Amino acid sequence: MASTQGQVIVCKAAVAWEAKKPLTIEDVEVAPPQQGEVRVKISYTALCHTDAYTLDGLDPEGLFPCILGHEAAGIVESVGEGVTEVQPGDHVIPCYQAECRECKFCKSGKTNLCGKVRPATGVGVMLNDLKSRFTVKGQPIYHFMGTSTFSQFTVVHAVSVAKVSPEAPLEKICLLGCGIPTGLGAVWNTAKVEPNSTVAIFGLGTVGLAVAEGAKAAGASRIIGIDIDDNKASLGEKFGVTEFINPKHHQKPIQEVIVGLTDGGVDYSFECIGNVDIMRSALECCHKGWGTSVIVGVAAAGKEISTRPFQLVTGRVWKGTAFGGFKSRTQVPQLVDKYLKKEIKVDEYITHNLPLSEINNAFDLMHHGRSLRAVIHMW
Amino acid sequence: MASTQGQVIVCKAAVAWEAKKPLTIEDVEVAPPQQGEVRVKISYTALCHTDAYTLDGLDPEGLFPCILGHEAAGIVESVGEGVTEVQPGDHVIPCYQAECRECKFCKSGKTNLCGKVRPATGVGVMLNDLKSRFTVKGQPIYHFMGTSTFSQFTVVHAVSVAKVSPEAPLEKICLLGCGIPTGLGAVWNTAKVEPNSTVAIFGLGTVGLAVAEGAKAAGASRIIGIDIDDNKASLGEKFGVTEFINPKHHQKPIQEVIVGLTDGGVDYSFECIGNVDIMRSALECCHKGWGTSVIVGVAAAGKEISTRPFQLVTGRVWKGTAFGGFKSRTQVPQLVDKYLKKEIKVDEYITHNLPLSEINNAFDLMHHGRSLRAVIHMW
Ligand SMILES: NC(=O)c1ccc[n+]([C@@H]2O[C@H](COP(=O)([O-])OP(=O)(O)OC[C@H]3O[C@@H](n4cnc5c(N)ncnc54)[C@H](O)[C@@H]3O)[C@@H](O)[C@H]2O)c1
Ligand SMILES: NC(=O)c1ccc[n+]([C@@H]2O[C@H](COP(=O)([O-])OP(=O)(O)OC[C@H]3O[C@@H](n4cnc5c(N)ncnc54)[C@H](O)[C@@H]3O)[C@@H](O)[C@H]2O)c1
Ligand SMILES: [Zn+2]
Ligand SMILES: [Zn+2]
Ligand SMILES: [Zn+2]
Ligand SMILES: [Zn+2]
Repeated sequence: MASTQGQVIVCKAAVAWEAKKPLTIEDVEVAPPQQGEVRVKISYTALCHTDAYTLDGLDPEGLFPCILGHEAAGIVESVGEGVTEVQPGDHVIPCYQAECRECKFCKSGKTNLCGKVRPATGVGVMLNDLKSRFTVKGQPIYHFMGTSTFSQFTVVHAVSVAKVSPEAPLEKICLLGCGIPTGLGAVWNTAKVEPNSTVAIFGLGTVGLAVAEGAKAAGASRIIGIDIDDNKASLGEKFGVTEFINPKHHQKPIQEVIVGLTDGGVDYSFECIGNVDIMRSALECCHKGWGTSVIVGVAAAGKEISTRPFQLVTGRVWKGTAFGGFKSRTQVPQLVDKYLKKEIKVDEYITHNLPLSEINNAFDLMHHGRSLRAVIHMW
Repeated sequence: MASTQGQVIVCKAAVAWEAKKPLTIEDVEVAPPQQGEVRVKISYTALCHTDAYTLDGLDPEGLFPCILGHEAAGIVESVGEGVTEVQPGDHVIPCYQAECRECKFCKSGKTNLCGKVRPATGVGVMLNDLKSRFTVKGQPIYHFMGTSTFSQFTVVHAVSVAKVSPEAPLEKICLLGCGIPTGLGAVWNTAKVEPNSTVAIFGLGTVGLAVAEGAKAAGASRIIGIDIDDNKASLGEKFGVTEFINPKHHQKPIQEVIVGLTDGGVDYSFECIGNVDIMRSALECCHKGWGTSVIVGVAAAGKEISTRPFQLVTGRVWKGTAFGGFKSRTQVPQLVDKYLKKEIKVDEYITHNLPLSEINNAFDLMHHGRSLRAVIHMW
């Protein structure tokens, strides 16, 4: 490790030069970490919808050229000045939600959102000098979500790395960087589902299946999975879904179908698709008086949710979640431990393993709904 | 009392024959209470926006002819078979939110909405025989909200009357039938505002002022009142408002003004107008990560609320409240006791006192924003 510390590292990375174009594998120069920064050797990264969403040009704030990727695991290569949280050799998961433990948000005790590095990560740079640590032949390449894990080496803020057990297999726990915690946390932290609750889950991708797993663990009595893909019926069962509905096989609006099946509606619903019309269905299939709906999916820019205010006046609650409400540096290591104790699934969400050179195929698999998570081995 | 028990009573009532027409004072025949019903001599009634809303034809479910009114106090005249909750001579407040203590809603412990008599009150009749107890020259007149307090005598379900202290002045505590509990409860039960919170209140009518009073009692550090009527500035102060904003005096959208004033937004906001655009402003002026917005106002039929889902994904919560979440039979008597102990204001909301014959003037005063509450003396 000592050989590269303080040096620029040249390594392979998948670069998104512009929206809607395939990524290309480039030799990228990765600058050494500055004060409060950590350079991480990425071992494995998975793809999540947010990567595709940005690559497809749907995020108006998406900046190009950039290095995407935010669901990964790796090993610390070197640390910048003043970094005490981790040291070279530590196994880590980069976290797109930072946790500085000092800002107004972190100290509120009410949210996992952290305000510390957002002003920089939101515009694709590092906080210390508001510049990127990546260049290709001298041209700066933007960071993405403060993680940029589609690179063999990346630089992240020290407040954005979770140090995890070295016993955990990096090729599995990379998934604990986004999708699985989001689903589990939506149930445990945001909705706080109680035993015997009824639950409806819209969309049974990785996030929706993790919601099912979380709901089962929380003791939900009925877990209704809703997906337009019939293949998700048997898959859902493995994660805790007790009833499957394909809206395409019903004439009535899906919220009416669910209200009819559940004597007035479910106690909790989760939208795990990113479709604003389904967000409305998810709210309106909740029981009058107490039903709570959690928005997990990320909608395309400019799209808006709507409903009659009467839905809320009569007791329904509309919420949302980012990273499932988990405090990243504190709680991601705990999730890794839960995985090691076999208390949560991870392996079961991995449907494909591919080398970095085939990363565009992984995007195709996702777009065609043929994968849950594709894990890319970086080396 | 014994003289009228079991008999039809003929008395004065203000009848709404059709939408958008003034009420007319009629001799109304009020049938005796049937099983599970109570006949109440109404002493005083106030007007609330929901009465005007129905009279203006804005409620598509409004039925005519009917007897409006739902914010009142009176004395039990007689009770029907099986009624043990109250007896003749008891001082009571009719409650448009019933509390049967037996239905799924009442037993949930999660809501004050009760499902017992709704199927009848929703269509203007009594549950026992699905008929009205009111006639004018033999023509049935619909009940309204299960209360119909614009009549010298009314018949209500036993699950919809709160028995209150006989020491409390009926001409004041009639207000505890709707507006004041709605505002107080929105803060105490629905939002659960904590000490040192920042609060924004949109609309400083009776409901909004009661929110201010509730927020002050809860220990809120800043209570921002927003109204397009500058007269509400000094009035608001008396109820706890610490800062007043008139949106008409600002160029920027009001949510941006508030976010700017509060370092990112308020902890809690309340919409007490019934305007869906303001409901959006109320949500969006909340702080990222934890801000909670409560819809109290009742919007016109067909109107919808909307926002970008990102507002919720980044931690804001959208809720609503009906009767402030108070369980009517259990908690209205407690509010009366609080009033007697001078722990909550009531007298301060009364701006006008009028006889039943002038009830149409009371509607005019409300429409012109010249009153908080006008109390009608029925006798
Ligand atoms: N809030 C957060 O912190 C957070 C974190 C991660 C992912 N997300 C978002 O969560 C969403 C789900 O992510 P994922 O990785 O599980 O996606 P995915 O594409 O794997 O799963 C989506 C599922 O929804 C189904 N679907 C699509 N349209 C549907 C419809 N109209 N009705 C019913 N089902 C439908 C698809 O068949 C698929 O099974 C995405 O929008 C993603 O951006 C949010
Ligand atoms: N949810 C419930 O259980 C419940 C119970 C009672 C009343 N309500 C509703 O609460 C609302 C308020 O009732 P109220 O009796 O206090 O009404 P009100 O008319 O006395 O007060 C409304 C206030 O809002 C102000 N206003 C109007 N438009 C505005 C705007 N665009 N921006 C800022 N201020 C504006 C008015 O000047 C007025 O001061 C009504 O919609 C009523 O139907 C709901
Ligand atoms: Zn993700
Ligand atoms: Zn922080
Ligand atoms: Zn009212
Ligand atoms: Zn009930």
